[in-house]
Amino acid sequence: MSEKGCCDSVGECFFDYHTSKILVIRSKKVGTLNRFTQALVIAYVIGYVCVLKKGYQDTDTVLSSVSTKVKGIALTNTSELGERIWDVADYIIPPQEDGSFFVLTNMIITPNQTQSKCAENPTPASICTSHRDCKRGFNDARGDGVRTGRCVDYNDTVKSCEVLSWCPLEKIVEPPNPPLLADAENFTVLIKNSIRYPKFNFNKRNILPNVNSSYLTQCVFSRKTDPDCPIFRLKDIVEEANEDFQTMAVHGGVMGVQILWDCDLDMPQSWCVPRYTFRRLDNKDPENNVAPGYNFRFAKYYKDSDGTETRTLIKGYGIRFDVLVFGQAGKFNIIPTLLNIGAGLALLGLVNVICDWIVLTFMTRKQHYKEQKYTYVDDYGLLSNEET
Amino acid sequence: MSEKGCCDSVGECFFDYHTSKILVIRSKKVGTLNRFTQALVIAYVIGYVCVLKKGYQDTDTVLSSVSTKVKGIALTNTSELGERIWDVADYIIPPQEDGSFFVLTNMIITPNQTQSKCAENPTPASICTSHRDCKRGFNDARGDGVRTGRCVDYNDTVKSCEVLSWCPLEKIVEPPNPPLLADAENFTVLIKNSIRYPKFNFNKRNILPNVNSSYLTQCVFSRKTDPDCPIFRLKDIVEEANEDFQTMAVHGGVMGVQILWDCDLDMPQSWCVPRYTFRRLDNKDPENNVAPGYNFRFAKYYKDSDGTETRTLIKGYGIRFDVLVFGQAGKFNIIPTLLNIGAGLALLGLVNVICDWIVLTFMTRKQHYKEQKYTYVDDYGLLSNEET
Amino acid sequence: MSEKGCCDSVGECFFDYHTSKILVIRSKKVGTLNRFTQALVIAYVIGYVCVLKKGYQDTDTVLSSVSTKVKGIALTNTSELGERIWDVADYIIPPQEDGSFFVLTNMIITPNQTQSKCAENPTPASICTSHRDCKRGFNDARGDGVRTGRCVDYNDTVKSCEVLSWCPLEKIVEPPNPPLLADAENFTVLIKNSIRYPKFNFNKRNILPNVNSSYLTQCVFSRKTDPDCPIFRLKDIVEEANEDFQTMAVHGGVMGVQILWDCDLDMPQSWCVPRYTFRRLDNKDPENNVAPGYNFRFAKYYKDSDGTETRTLIKGYGIRFDVLVFGQAGKFNIIPTLLNIGAGLALLGLVNVICDWIVLTFMTRKQHYKEQKYTYVDDYGLLSNEET
Repeated sequence: MSEKGCCDSVGECFFDYHTSKILVIRSKKVGTLNRFTQALVIAYVIGYVCVLKKGYQDTDTVLSSVSTKVKGIALTNTSELGERIWDVADYIIPPQEDGSFFVLTNMIITPNQTQSKCAENPTPASICTSHRDCKRGFNDARGDGVRTGRCVDYNDTVKSCEVLSWCPLEKIVEPPNPPLLADAENFTVLIKNSIRYPKFNFNKRNILPNVNSSYLTQCVFSRKTDPDCPIFRLKDIVEEANEDFQTMAVHGGVMGVQILWDCDLDMPQSWCVPRYTFRRLDNKDPENNVAPGYNFRFAKYYKDSDGTETRTLIKGYGIRFDVLVFGQAGKFNIIPTLLNIGAGLALLGLVNVICDWIVLTFMTRKQHYKEQKYTYVDDYGLLSNEET
Repeated sequence: MSEKGCCDSVGECFFDYHTSKILVIRSKKVGTLNRFTQALVIAYVIGYVCVLKKGYQDTDTVLSSVSTKVKGIALTNTSELGERIWDVADYIIPPQEDGSFFVLTNMIITPNQTQSKCAENPTPASICTSHRDCKRGFNDARGDGVRTGRCVDYNDTVKSCEVLSWCPLEKIVEPPNPPLLADAENFTVLIKNSIRYPKFNFNKRNILPNVNSSYLTQCVFSRKTDPDCPIFRLKDIVEEANEDFQTMAVHGGVMGVQILWDCDLDMPQSWCVPRYTFRRLDNKDPENNVAPGYNFRFAKYYKDSDGTETRTLIKGYGIRFDVLVFGQAGKFNIIPTLLNIGAGLALLGLVNVICDWIVLTFMTRKQHYKEQKYTYVDDYGLLSNEET
Repeated sequence: MSEKGCCDSVGECFFDYHTSKILVIRSKKVGTLNRFTQALVIAYVIGYVCVLKKGYQDTDTVLSSVSTKVKGIALTNTSELGERIWDVADYIIPPQEDGSFFVLTNMIITPNQTQSKCAENPTPASICTSHRDCKRGFNDARGDGVRTGRCVDYNDTVKSCEVLSWCPLEKIVEPPNPPLLADAENFTVLIKNSIRYPKFNFNKRNILPNVNSSYLTQCVFSRKTDPDCPIFRLKDIVEEANEDFQTMAVHGGVMGVQILWDCDLDMPQSWCVPRYTFRRLDNKDPENNVAPGYNFRFAKYYKDSDGTETRTLIKGYGIRFDVLVFGQAGKFNIIPTLLNIGAGLALLGLVNVICDWIVLTFMTRKQHYKEQKYTYVDDYGLLSNEET
C-alpha cells in the first residue's frame, strides 16, 4: 500500500474535496419518518421563525418626542370663590411638560397664608395639655411646622402645640365630592408624537398624511369612526381603561396613554401606524396604598401693599396623563437571516441523529444496517465485522 | 461474522470515537469551487459578522440623565410694555425640567384679566342677534367661556354671546412677526449628559476629560473647530437642522438635540464619545397640521389691594428643545460569539450539500463518484452497485 | 455494474434515508478526549447558555411610570427674611414632574427687582473709565443686561457700564455655607413606580402586595430592616451614593435613584421585585466642570399698587433626583431555545473536526486510521490506498 495521503503536497491538499461516504437505506418506514421530521424542522424554520416571528429581521427601538395641547373650560361655584371659570392656564400644572400633562380636577384651597404662629391641627401626636408636652424646635416630616414650645388653644375644646408655619394651616379634610372641576371630563387633548427609528433612518408622525387641517379642527378620536384623529376626550381615555372619570377625579390618579409603533419596514411605510391603548397606572386599591390617587401642593405668591408676602396654598388633585411611546421596527438583515438558517441546518443534523437511533434500535434489519454503516478499528487493527 | 457491536458493554461504547468515512475527490474543478464557497462563508462569518457588525458582542442600551442651563438676555420694545429685557427667569418655562427646555421666542400678552362677563370674540359660532341665540350654560371646548344666555355688543357693528370668563378675552390674532424675542437666537445652552450602560457597569459624561473649566467658560460648539464643547448656540442648533431660527421663532416649534452614544467597550474608553445631531421634530407642513408650531398658555397671578385676583395671560410661542439620548454599547461576550460561529459552521455544512449536488449532477465522472460515495441497502440486503 | 442511482424515480428517492458511513475507532485516548470535549460543549450550552444566561428566553424592556411625593418642613433664619419655614409648595420646583423631582437646598435671593438701569457687576469686561468704553446696545450672553452706553459709578471706588436690566442686579457671590435649607436632609420621598412588560402583558408596582397602608404611614426604607418600603429619606439616598448631603446641598447636584426590574417571568411573579441603587449623576470634579452642582434661576412676580411689575429673583441651588427605571424581563420562547441548541449542535461538529485532526496527526496508528477513513478518487479512477 503506497501512501498518497493528504498533505504530501499542500497544493494537492488544497484542491481535495472531502465528501462523506453515504449508506442509503431504502425503506419506506425509515424514509417516511425521516422526511416527516425534516418537514417539521423546515416548517418551523421557514413558517414559524421567518414568516410568523420575522426572524430574518434586525430590530430597533423607537426614539420619541411628544407634545400635548389641552382645550376646555370648566365652571365652578363655591362659597369661597363664587362663580368662576377655569381655563388651560389655570388647570394645567406646570403649563408645559415633555410627554406628560396634569389636569387639575379637584382641590382644597387655603387662601391668605402668611408666615406666623398658630395651633397645629389636633392629632394624637399634637394634642397637648401643657407647654411641657410641646418641645421647641421639634419638626416632624409629617407635621405642619416647627414647634415653638407652647401649648395653645386650637378651639374651645382642644389644645394643641403651636407651630411656626404658613398660617392658617390647611385643614385635614377629604377633597370635595363630586369633584370641583367635574367639567374636566369634556376637555380634549391634541397629542402630537414624532418618532424615529435611528438604525433604519425612518421618521414618522402620528398625524398621518391622510389627515388634513380642516378634519383636525373638529374631529375627536373614536376607535370605530375616527381612529386616525389625534384629539382625545379625557372622559373617553378614562372609560376605555374601565374607569369612571368622576370617581377618579375626586382623589386624582395617573392614566397611561400608550402609543405602540410596531412597524415592519419591509412593508409599505403607510402600514406603519400608531396604535393607542389606555391604562390606569396608579393603584386604586386602598389597602396597600398610601396617598391613593394623585395630588400635590403648589402655591400662588402675592405681596401686600406693605410688602408682606402672602400665599394661597392649593392641594391639587387631578389626573396626570403619561404618554408612553414604545415599539419596535424590523427590517430584513442578512445576519439574523443566516443565523436562523444556520441554526435550522444544525437542527436538521439532529433529525439524522434521531433517525439513526431509531433505525439501529428498532428496525428488524438493524444488525445488517450496523454492519454496513460501521467499520471498527482499534489500536491493533480492523475488527471482525469488516467484510473480507 | 461475529458481532462486536456497540453497547455490548457500556464501558466500551463510551470510549468509541465515531468519525465519518470520507471520499476524497481529487479534482481541480470541484476543489476550487469547494474552497471558493468555503472562503465566502468564512469571509462572511469573520469579515462581515464579526469584524464589521461586531456579532461577537453582547449589547446594552443607554441609561441617561440630562441637565441644561441656558444663558442670554433679550431686549424688546413694545408699546404695551416699553423697553424691557428678558432674562433666564423670564423666558425658560418651567424654570427646570429633566431633559428638555423651552425658550420663549414670541408671545401674545393679555394683561389685567379678571373673572367677569364680556362678549365672546365674534366667530360664526358666537355671533348673535338676540338673546335666544345664546344658550345659558353652553360651554364648548373650543370656546372662550361659559355662556350667560345674553347677546351683547362686541363692538359698534357686531353682537356676540356674552360669556363668564377671564375678561378681557385674548384677541384672536397672529403672533408678532418678526418675533418679540428675536435675540433668542444668540442664547447659549450648556448641556450636561451623564450616561451609563448598566450591564457593563460603564459610566461616562459628555464633558470629556480633556475639557477644562477655563475652556468651558468661553467655548461654543462648532463641528469643525470645537466639537467637544458642550455649549451650543440656539441659532446653530436650528441651522444645522436646515431651519431658519427667526422663521421658526414666530410660531414656535420643537427641536430635537440627539446625542448618540454608540460605544465599543472592547476599545479604549476614550473612544466612547457622544455624537450630536439636530433635527426638527414638529411638522412644518400647514396642510395636515392643526396648531402648527409650539405654544401654550400660562398666567401670572396678582392680587389687588382690595383682594381681587387679577392675572396676566400669556400665550407663549417658543422652541422646545428635547434632548434625546440614545445608543448602544457592545462588549465581547462568549455567547453571541459561539452562536455566530455555530451558525457559520452549519452554513459550511450547506456548502458541502451544494458541492455534492454539483459534483453528482454536472461532473463527467459523476457515475463513478456515485458508486464510491453511496452504498445501497434495502430491507432485503445490499443492492447491486456494491463492488465485489 | 448496473446503476440504481438516486432519482431514477422520484418516488424511490423520496423514501431513501441517507446516513453517513462511520469509522469507529476504539481507543481509550481518543475516546476520552472526544467525550471530554463533547462534555465541555454540552456543559457550555446547557449550563452556561441555558441555565446561567437564560439563553432559552425571549426578552423585553420595561415601560415605566413614576410619581413622587416629598414630605418635610425646613426652618431658616436669615437677616433678610427672618425666621421662616419652607414647606413642599416652597421648595419643590416645579410642583410636579414626571419621574424627577427637585428639592431646593440653598439660594441667593434678590428681592424687589424692577426693569430699570443700573451699573453692571464689575468684571474685567464691564469695568470702564468713560462712556466710550461702553457700547450702547451691547448684549453679551454672559452679561447682566443690555448696555445703555453710559459709564456710571458702581460704588465709591469703581465705575462700570450701565445696563438696562432687572435692577438691583444679583450679586456675584458664593451661595451660603452651610446651606440655608439644611433641614432638607430629613425630608422623605414616597416613590410610586408602575411598570409593564408589554410583550408579556405583565404589570407590577413597586408597592408590593405584602405592604399595607398602616405600614406605609410610618416606614422608611432601609436595606437591612425595611427593604420593601418605598419611602426614602433624602439623606439616606445621598449617603448610599457615598456623598455627604450637607456638602452636596451647598452647590446642589443631581442624584440618580435607579430602580432595576430584572424579572424571570418563568418563575413566580412574586420573585419579580424592584432593586434600588443610588448614584450621583453630576460631576463633582471642579477641573473639567463649568457651573458645578445644580442650580437654576426662577422668579416670583408681583404688582405694586400702582401697577408696576416687580419680581423676586431666586438663584436656587438644590438636588434634582432623577428616578431611572430600567430592566429586562425574560420568558421561555421556542425560538431562542432552538437557536442556541442549533448553535450548540454545530459546535459539537467542531469537536469532531478537532478530534479528527488530533487522531490523524498525533496518534501512533494514524496511517492505519487514514487508510480506513479516506477513499481517494480522482478524475481517472480510484487511487492506490484502496484495498483490493
